[in-house]
Amino acid sequence: MVPSSSPSAATATRPAFARWMGTTNQITRTFLSAGAIPGLINVAGGLPDPSLFPTDRLAAFARRAVAEHPDEVLGYGPIEGLAPLRDAIARRLGSPALPLTRANVLVTTAGMQGLDLIGKVLLDEGGLIAGQSPTYLGALDAWRPRSPSFRNLVLDEPGFDPERAFAGAQFAYAVPNFSNPTGRLVDLATRRALVAAAHRTGTWLVEDDPYGTLHYDGAALPRLIELSAQTAPGEPYAGPVIYMGTLSKEIAPGLRIGWIVAAPEMIEALTLAKQGSDLCTSGVTQRIALAAMETGLLEEIRPAIVALYRERRDALCAALSAHLSDCFTWEVPVGGMFVWALAKDPDLDTDALLPHALAAGICFSPSSVFDARGANRRGMRINFTLNPPETLDEAMRRLAAAVAAYRASRAAA
Amino acid sequence: MVPSSSPSAATATRPAFARWMGTTNQITRTFLSAGAIPGLINVAGGLPDPSLFPTDRLAAFARRAVAEHPDEVLGYGPIEGLAPLRDAIARRLGSPALPLTRANVLVTTAGMQGLDLIGKVLLDEGGLIAGQSPTYLGALDAWRPRSPSFRNLVLDEPGFDPERAFAGAQFAYAVPNFSNPTGRLVDLATRRALVAAAHRTGTWLVEDDPYGTLHYDGAALPRLIELSAQTAPGEPYAGPVIYMGTLSKEIAPGLRIGWIVAAPEMIEALTLAKQGSDLCTSGVTQRIALAAMETGLLEEIRPAIVALYRERRDALCAALSAHLSDCFTWEVPVGGMFVWALAKDPDLDTDALLPHALAAGICFSPSSVFDARGANRRGMRINFTLNPPETLDEAMRRLAAAVAAYRASRAAA
Repeated sequence: MVPSSSPSAATATRPAFARWMGTTNQITRTFLSAGAIPGLINVAGGLPDPSLFPTDRLAAFARRAVAEHPDEVLGYGPIEGLAPLRDAIARRLGSPALPLTRANVLVTTAGMQGLDLIGKVLLDEGGLIAGQSPTYLGALDAWRPRSPSFRNLVLDEPGFDPERAFAGAQFAYAVPNFSNPTGRLVDLATRRALVAAAHRTGTWLVEDDPYGTLHYDGAALPRLIELSAQTAPGEPYAGPVIYMGTLSKEIAPGLRIGWIVAAPEMIEALTLAKQGSDLCTSGVTQRIALAAMETGLLEEIRPAIVALYRERRDALCAALSAHLSDCFTWEVPVGGMFVWALAKDPDLDTDALLPHALAAGICFSPSSVFDARGANRRGMRINFTLNPPETLDEAMRRLAAAVAAYRASRAAA
Repeated sequence: MVPSSSPSAATATRPAFARWMGTTNQITRTFLSAGAIPGLINVAGGLPDPSLFPTDRLAAFARRAVAEHPDEVLGYGPIEGLAPLRDAIARRLGSPALPLTRANVLVTTAGMQGLDLIGKVLLDEGGLIAGQSPTYLGALDAWRPRSPSFRNLVLDEPGFDPERAFAGAQFAYAVPNFSNPTGRLVDLATRRALVAAAHRTGTWLVEDDPYGTLHYDGAALPRLIELSAQTAPGEPYAGPVIYMGTLSKEIAPGLRIGWIVAAPEMIEALTLAKQGSDLCTSGVTQRIALAAMETGLLEEIRPAIVALYRERRDALCAALSAHLSDCFTWEVPVGGMFVWALAKDPDLDTDALLPHALAAGICFSPSSVFDARGANRRGMRINFTLNPPETLDEAMRRLAAAVAAYRASRAAA
C-alpha cells in the first residue's frame, strides 16, 4: 500500500491554482525582502524607522500582558477583540457628536486584514469598487482574489461628481489623510462631498487612515466618519463610513493591531468574516496595544516621530530639487510617509526605469502598482521615513543616474 | 455641503452583502461567547484548560522577544514568517526520510488562517473539496466564502475508494489524528491509501493535525506527509501533502501561531495569499513560539497536559455510561479533545435537542454543524478538556435531563 514511486506517479498533474493567482503582482514581497540586498537604498516600502520603537516600554507591556492576564491573552479570545481594547478605541475616536460603543468596533490583525474582511463581506466575483486613484497597493492585493471591477475616483479632477462615481459600487475607498501613494491631503469640501454622496446613495465609504497621526504642517481636517455623524449628531453611529485605523505607523507594525469602526450591522458582518479568517487576533498583542493607549505612550512618542519624519520629508524634497528637478515634479506632502513624483516627460516609463534604479542601488515603487489595471506608468512613490537625510540625498543622486542610464538605453534602442 | 439629514438620506439602501453571508452559521461565535452565560457548562468548544498555560515562562519569553529582538519583532516581518522559526518547524517535523528546509514552511496566524489560505489559493467559485466526513466546523467556515462543492469522504465505509473520491477535487481534507469532531484515529492502511491516491491523482491532500500531541493510549501513527515522503526518501519534499500544525492545543491558542509544511511551490502560492490577508504574523508571538520550541518547554509541559486530559476523557466516558448509555453510543477516543456520541434513536435530532440542553445548563456541538449541507442530525460532539471530572458528570446528568425534556416535548406535540 506504500505509494508507488513510478515516474507517472511523480509527475501526476496537480489541480490548477485559483484564477486570481495568475493576475497578481509580487512587488510588495520584493519590497519587503529588498532590505536584504546589500547596499540597496529602499525608498519603496512604507517602513517606519526602527530607532523610534519604544522597545523598553513595549517589552514591559509584553511581559505584563501575559503575567497579569494569562487566561484572557493565552486562551481563545472573542472574535471581535478584547472588550477593554474595543472600548479604548471607541473612546479614542469618539466625541459627543460621534458617540461610539464597542458595538462599533472590531479589532483586526492590522490594517491589511481590515481590507481583506471588507472585501470578504461586500464583494461577490466582479463586484464594483469605486476607489481613490491612484490606489494603495495593499488594498488592490487584498481585493484581487475576489476579481472586482474598479472605477477610479480622481478626486481633484475638475467636475468630479462623487454621487455618479459611487453609482452601483459595493463600496467606495479613500485614504483622505496623506493618501498612499500620493501623500495628498483630501480637502474639506471634497470630504464633505464624498460623505454626502455616501449618505445619498447608501454606498459604504471606506476611510482608510493609517497616517492620520503623521501630520507635519497645518491643522488636521475632520475625518469622514465625523462628517458622516453630523447628519445625526449624538446618536449611536449607524452611517455608511467604515473607518480603518492601525498602530502600524503610530508605534510598531509588528504588533499587527488595527481596527475598524463602523455601524454595528457592518461590525457584525465583519466579525462573521473574521471568524473564518483567523478566529481572533492574539490577546498578547491586543493587551500590548491597550497598554500603549491607556498609559499615554502613543502621545508621548508622537512628537519625536513627527519631528524626525518632517526633517526627512524636507531632506527628500531638497534632494529631489538638487538632483531631479529637470525631469520630475512633485508636491511637498503635509503628512504621511511618501512623496509622489511624476515624470515631466510623458513617455518616461517608471516600470522600465526600475531595473536601472535597482542596478544603481535604489528601489522605488513604480506608479503602475497603484492602479488596478497597471495603467499608470509615469510616476513613482518615494518613502522618506526609513532613511536619514544623507541617505535620501544619495538615493536621489542614484535615481538621477538611473534616469540617465534609462535615457541612454532608450536612445540606443 | 454637510450631508443632508432628510428621511430619504437616512434610509438610503445599502449594497447587499456578499452571497455567502446568507449561508453561514453563527454557532462557533455562540460557543466562544457561551463562556459568559452564568452556570452554563460548555462542552461545545475545543478549549484548553487555562490552568495548563505555562504563564511565567511565556511572560518571560514575551518580554525577551521585544527586548532582545526589537527591530525584528516590532517591524514588518517577512510574509513567510521569521526565518529561525521556519527552520525550527522544519527541524521539528523533518527526518532523514523527510528532509525539510524553510522553503517548505509558512508561518500562519494559527490554524484557521492556514485553512483560509488553502481555500484562497485552490478554490474558484464552486471548486470541489473531498473532505473527511464529518468535517471540522472551522474548515467549513474558512471555505464557505468561496462557495465550494463538498464530496464527503467516509473513511471507514466498506469499499471506500480514495482515488475515486479524489477525482476532480481541488484538494482532499483529513484530520488523521483524533479527528474533529469524531475523535477517531485514522488507521495506517487508510492513511496509506489516502496518500497513494493523492500521488496517483495529483490531488493536494491537506493533513490538518492540531491534536497530534494529545495522544492518550497506544503509539502514534506516521503522518501522511511522512508516508508521502517514502516515495522519494531523502529528497527535498515536493509531494502532494499539505501538513498543518498549530500551537493552539499544544501550549496556548492566544499566541495564534500555526504553520503549513508543504512543497515549495505550494508555500510560494500560500505566501502570495497571505500577503493580501494580513501581510505577516506578529513577530512578537512568533518569537514567543520559537522560544517555547527552542527551550524544550513544549516537551516539558506535555506529560501534565496528556495526564490531565486522559483523566477527563475517562471521566466523560464514565459519565456517559452512568447517565446516557440507554440513548447514545460512542467510542472511547485514544486522543484529542472530543467524544462523538450518536443517538440510538435514528429520529433523535440534536439540533432540536440543543435548546433543551441550553435550558438545562449545558452547551454541546450538534452534528449538523460538521456537515457542509447541515445534513447529519443524530450526533453531538462533547469536549472533555475544559472541565474537571465532577463538572463533566454534572454535564452528562443535565444532558440526560435535556433528552427527557426533549422526548416529553415530542410526545406532547
